Amino acid sequence: MTKFNLQHVVESQQFDRELIDVVFSVASQMKEDLSGSGQLRYSLAGKIMASLFYEPSTRTRFSFECAMRRLGGSVITTENAREFSSASKGESLHDTTRIMNGYADIIVMRHNEAGSAEKAAQVSNIPIINAGDGAGQHPTQALLDLFTIQDCFQGIEGLNIAMVGDLKYGRTVRSLSYLLTKFDNVKLYFVAPTVCQMENDIKAYLDKYQVPWFEETDFEKVLPEVDCVYMTRIQKERFNVYEDYVEAAGKYILGPENVRLMKENAIIMHPLPRVDEIPPAVDDDPRAQYFEQAQNGLYIRMALLYLLLHR
Amino acid sequence: MTKFNLQHVVESQQFDRELIDVVFSVASQMKEDLSGSGQLRYSLAGKIMASLFYEPSTRTRFSFECAMRRLGGSVITTENAREFSSASKGESLHDTTRIMNGYADIIVMRHNEAGSAEKAAQVSNIPIINAGDGAGQHPTQALLDLFTIQDCFQGIEGLNIAMVGDLKYGRTVRSLSYLLTKFDNVKLYFVAPTVCQMENDIKAYLDKYQVPWFEETDFEKVLPEVDCVYMTRIQKERFNVYEDYVEAAGKYILGPENVRLMKENAIIMHPLPRVDEIPPAVDDDPRAQYFEQAQNGLYIRMALLYLLLHR
Amino acid sequence: MTKFNLQHVVESQQFDRELIDVVFSVASQMKEDLSGSGQLRYSLAGKIMASLFYEPSTRTRFSFECAMRRLGGSVITTENAREFSSASKGESLHDTTRIMNGYADIIVMRHNEAGSAEKAAQVSNIPIINAGDGAGQHPTQALLDLFTIQDCFQGIEGLNIAMVGDLKYGRTVRSLSYLLTKFDNVKLYFVAPTVCQMENDIKAYLDKYQVPWFEETDFEKVLPEVDCVYMTRIQKERFNVYEDYVEAAGKYILGPENVRLMKENAIIMHPLPRVDEIPPAVDDDPRAQYFEQAQNGLYIRMALLYLLLHR
Repeated sequence: MTKFNLQHVVESQQFDRELIDVVFSVASQMKEDLSGSGQLRYSLAGKIMASLFYEPSTRTRFSFECAMRRLGGSVITTENAREFSSASKGESLHDTTRIMNGYADIIVMRHNEAGSAEKAAQVSNIPIINAGDGAGQHPTQALLDLFTIQDCFQGIEGLNIAMVGDLKYGRTVRSLSYLLTKFDNVKLYFVAPTVCQMENDIKAYLDKYQVPWFEETDFEKVLPEVDCVYMTRIQKERFNVYEDYVEAAGKYILGPENVRLMKENAIIMHPLPRVDEIPPAVDDDPRAQYFEQAQNGLYIRMALLYLLLHR
Repeated sequence: MTKFNLQHVVESQQFDRELIDVVFSVASQMKEDLSGSGQLRYSLAGKIMASLFYEPSTRTRFSFECAMRRLGGSVITTENAREFSSASKGESLHDTTRIMNGYADIIVMRHNEAGSAEKAAQVSNIPIINAGDGAGQHPTQALLDLFTIQDCFQGIEGLNIAMVGDLKYGRTVRSLSYLLTKFDNVKLYFVAPTVCQMENDIKAYLDKYQVPWFEETDFEKVLPEVDCVYMTRIQKERFNVYEDYVEAAGKYILGPENVRLMKENAIIMHPLPRVDEIPPAVDDDPRAQYFEQAQNGLYIRMALLYLLLHR
Repeated sequence: MTKFNLQHVVESQQFDRELIDVVFSVASQMKEDLSGSGQLRYSLAGKIMASLFYEPSTRTRFSFECAMRRLGGSVITTENAREFSSASKGESLHDTTRIMNGYADIIVMRHNEAGSAEKAAQVSNIPIINAGDGAGQHPTQALLDLFTIQDCFQGIEGLNIAMVGDLKYGRTVRSLSYLLTKFDNVKLYFVAPTVCQMENDIKAYLDKYQVPWFEETDFEKVLPEVDCVYMTRIQKERFNVYEDYVEAAGKYILGPENVRLMKENAIIMHPLPRVDEIPPAVDDDPRAQYFEQAQNGLYIRMALLYLLLHR
């Protein structure tokens, strides 16, 4: 196995092609083992993972905790880690991290403030995995998205990918765009309501790496062109005027009649939860890969836990 | 072992005599093993149970989680699953269930809305156990109640059983009545304040299966007649007028002086928690079986977990 | 191993010299094993610990749960045990304890009311460990404090110890004072703002056991004299007037310039969390032992869990 020289997983930018390949290779083995005999070739028996959640995010927490359990490790967990830093007691993140170093072997941290994972990593002797820090990073989500594409097409090179919905605030499409620059001949289509378009920083980054991108408003024109449609939820809380939200949310719905326009072997992704942007009628279409995508999160997290604890 | 052909445990009505016998037989073995050497003949090592609680019910959750742990399995748990369906994110129960299918081997679900377990079971490839859904079902409680009677008397046939207290809203006495129709020569006595009497649907059901039932107001007349007194808590939140509650709650108290009227080998049951309807002075009477009854919940849940995961 | 004849750990007063020696001896073995090969000579595989927290205290809970996991045991946990005794259901602590007896092998209880652990112990057939009950006891904290001193100096006899900060409300300094009377030639220095001085009951207790104690206001005069400086947090919630709090909290800060006055091999302790009373600049000084102290909690709790479950 290629050397895995990361100590913490804090942001997507840490992952170059080589690291991505190592993680995906181990994740594929995890998937193969669990889908097959159920017997894993790797074990984290005797290791303890601390779930340190400063805000609840049950889905992400479950995914990490299942990953650790599947590997035979154990878990201690809190969803109200904010208690540590509560007004009356007022402990710093540094102190909390150092104390956790004495208890656990690895920390999975969710925080409401961007930069928290990096801050914890600075003082931690045990690996930190960022499970989302505010408007900041959520690197394991970015990796599982990329892994899903790779797993479906046996490679990323040469694919056309449409990102649809809230591209402005959607953390996942931003991170995925970033990671896609590491692969050749990828083309991106951004389909978003006017108020939710992809930000310029990402566009500039794509330009720098010569990744062609196109802003489109005609959904039906894009669908036949692409190998992957990455749908996202329009987030109500981003809108001041309710009518604006309704208009934006209703603009790009991927119903069965739209799916029919897609290539036979294209895939539909969504980071979930979804609201109305993909109707349940689409779920049984073989192109719908969003539940598989969620499950891939398990394998990616198993791979990261294993690699970080067995360097 | 007789075939166990259930995929999910959603409601008491799923259990016919044959299924009940299988569950009780395995539960008895669990009890025997844990009370004896502590060495279990069954194992769920490597399996993961997800506790998906949309409302807290710590006692029920603990009982299930201990059951899974005793069998060597592991557990991921949340008491705020309602976050999944929160207004801002708005995920459907179907989606949550399908995602959980990718993580865990079995789901224990507690929900505030009747019918939720059935709804989840419709889309789930892994077993769902209903741990109570609103005013709906709580089938494992019904089974543990029945198992307690069977365990004490080595059979249910021919027993006289009094149900006392809140028979109108009490989910447990309703379900138990239902299950008792599957046994011969059982006689039921309903002792309840006027406002809490057993509903007509259950009475009609009993009639249909020719189970004799009697409504009584004279507690002391009933006590010497029965083999089992199933006490229940009058629920304050059911009453609009506080005085009505106090009158109802004070009407049928099973104190030591009442216990003295009972048969030597009769038993006292209660689904717990209790308030004042059984004073602590009764706890040391050998007829008091309510703590044993709670413990039987462990064995019933171990049996169900094992049977569902080893079909 | 000397006989360990405790059934429950409810209060510091239960521990005489002989018991302390047994606990510390096992805790040292735990520390040696985990710091070395990671292979433990003890195991609690198959045992279940119930964390019954009537109020959240994530740090303490994590410490106990890691202790149990490290020993190979499993854990069921709640931070809202108060639900058991909620107004609408109203279960007594006695009933909750008896029911838990049917599920778990040992109970770790945190409660908001003093005396709760003792109350639970009265009816429990399985061991209860008090993880703090209101203004009452927190015996495992007292033991880990004492263990830290012993571990640093290979003995307690003959040491001079300063306690600084909130000596009036600080549970830890009170309990530690109590335990220190069991060792010869210990001298205590109390350094506290006027409103937070050590209470007379402890002073009288020290007098009874002929432990010399001194009240000092001149921090810098005390520092060169002592082997251990035990800092505590001034608790804002104890003050009615904010200015009084600020004055008290600012009075005794152990900054790097103060640390320079201490003996070369002296140690700095703090029960954590800290606020401003020890600036982070001190953390790298080899005398700073507060994170080590927190980690010692793991070993002490492992030792207690093992000793209580293997009598």
